[in-house]
Amino acid sequence: MTPLDELKQYRKSIDNLDDALIRIVAERFRITKAVGVLKANNDLPPADPARESQQVERLRALALDADLDPDFAEKLLNFIIKEVIRHHEQARS
Amino acid sequence: MTPLDELKQYRKSIDNLDDALIRIVAERFRITKAVGVLKANNDLPPADPARESQQVERLRALALDADLDPDFAEKLLNFIIKEVIRHHEQARS
Repeated sequence: MTPLDELKQYRKSIDNLDDALIRIVAERFRITKAVGVLKANNDLPPADPARESQQVERLRALALDADLDPDFAEKLLNFIIKEVIRHHEQARS
Repeated sequence: MTPLDELKQYRKSIDNLDDALIRIVAERFRITKAVGVLKANNDLPPADPARESQQVERLRALALDADLDPDFAEKLLNFIIKEVIRHHEQARS
């Protein structure tokens, strides 16, 4: 296999993983939107610091197991949660 | 099902999706690291603007199909690519 063929194979894998990533993130937002509605309809508090710190700890441990930088995993989670908060704010207004 | 039970069920789904997300991102970094080595060993240019814009277009289209904000999908891809570049810079130094 030439280096360019090898590169092409790697890129197919990256594209497949990106597809999976988008689908998973889309499904995650579907659920967090449902959570937002559930909380609003039942006067549950929008934020839950205990749950959030437990999520961070779970993901950091899993990242270590997967040879992923735990700081990056935490930053990624925060990046996604920021978008969840934006959805909830949009839904409220 | 009480609202709190319903919330618990949603949170289990979110945890499962986050686990999948971490595993997929970890696998993506394994491949981009291999790509970095391949490019360095074969004097291939580290950046490929044509490939990158094609990736962005693919993901934006897929996001639309998955009811995900395409701007968010693009920001997410850029967030991950920034980490890939950081890895490549670490590998070089």
